[in-house]
Amino acid sequence: MDNAFVEESVAVLARTPATLDALLRGLQEPWTSATEGPGTWSPYAVIGHLIHGEQTDWIPRLGIILEHGASRPFEPFDREAQFREDTNRPLAELLDEFTRLRSENLARLRSWNLQPSHLELQGRHPALGLVTARQLIATWTAHDLSHIVQIGRVLAKRYRLEVGPWTEYLSVMK
Amino acid sequence: MDNAFVEESVAVLARTPATLDALLRGLQEPWTSATEGPGTWSPYAVIGHLIHGEQTDWIPRLGIILEHGASRPFEPFDREAQFREDTNRPLAELLDEFTRLRSENLARLRSWNLQPSHLELQGRHPALGLVTARQLIATWTAHDLSHIVQIGRVLAKRYRLEVGPWTEYLSVMK
Repeated sequence: MDNAFVEESVAVLARTPATLDALLRGLQEPWTSATEGPGTWSPYAVIGHLIHGEQTDWIPRLGIILEHGASRPFEPFDREAQFREDTNRPLAELLDEFTRLRSENLARLRSWNLQPSHLELQGRHPALGLVTARQLIATWTAHDLSHIVQIGRVLAKRYRLEVGPWTEYLSVMK
Repeated sequence: MDNAFVEESVAVLARTPATLDALLRGLQEPWTSATEGPGTWSPYAVIGHLIHGEQTDWIPRLGIILEHGASRPFEPFDREAQFREDTNRPLAELLDEFTRLRSENLARLRSWNLQPSHLELQGRHPALGLVTARQLIATWTAHDLSHIVQIGRVLAKRYRLEVGPWTEYLSVMK
C-alpha cells in the first residue's frame, strides 16, 4: 500500500477514534446529549452513526467494489440506524466499539494492499451512481472530519447564550 | 470550585489539548499546513493561536477581572500573533507547549477557587464593553470548540474534489 493518497487517508482515519475519545470520554452528560434542536444529533448519536458506518458502509462497500465492481450496487446506508439502538449503552462503551471496529477495518484495508489501479475501480452507489474506490476512501475520511466538525459545533452552541457579547466573534454560534 | 458551570467548562478546556494532539500529532504535513485559501489558517496556525490565547488572553483577563474589575480594560488580543512567530517549529513542539500552558492555566483557575459571586464580576473588553467572568470562561470554552470545528473543516476541504459525487452529502465542503 505504498500509495500517498491511501496513506494520508489512513492517517486521518486511524486518528479519529482517539480524537473523539479525548474529546468525549467522561464528559458530563449535558454535553454529550446536547443537540442543535429537534431532529438534530447529539455527540452520543454521532458515535452510534460512526459505528454503523464501520459495520455497514465504508469497508463493506469497498469490498463490493473489489469483488463485483459496478455490477452490484451498494446496499443503501441507513443514516438513522443509531436511533433504533439501545440508547442506554454508556458512551464509553460506544467509543470502545468504534475504536475496535475502526481498527479492524483499517487492518482489512491494509490486507487488501491496494495498488493505484485498484483505486480507479468503480462501484455503483444506489443514489449517486458510479463512484471510484478512491472517492470512497476520500469520503470515508472526510465523513469522519465532518462529524468532528459537527460535534464541536453542537458542543459550542450549548454556550450560545453563555458567551454574552462575545457571540459576535464566534461564527460557530451562527 | 463546586460550581457546575465552571466544572463543565473545565471538562472541555482540559480535553482540548489531548483532542488536538490525537488529531494532529504525526499527521502528514499536507494536512497540517492545509488552508481554506489565501488569508485563512492552517491547523498549524490554529495551534499557534491557541498558545497565544493561553499566554495573553483568557487567564490574564480573568486575573484582571478578579483584581481590578471593570476599572482596567483588557489588553487587546492579537489574533494574528502566531504569524510573527518562528514557523519552523515542529507542530509536535507547539502541541506540547499548548498542553503545558493549558494545564498551568487550569491549575491557576482552580487555585482561585471561584464562587458563584465571582462569576458575576465584570471586566471591560476593549471592543465589546462590559463582560462577566462567567462569559469569559464560557467564551474560552466555546473558542476551543470553534477551533476544533475549524481544523476539522480545513482538513475535510482538502478532499473537496477527491470525494467526487459524495460532495452532495457533505455539507462541510460548502
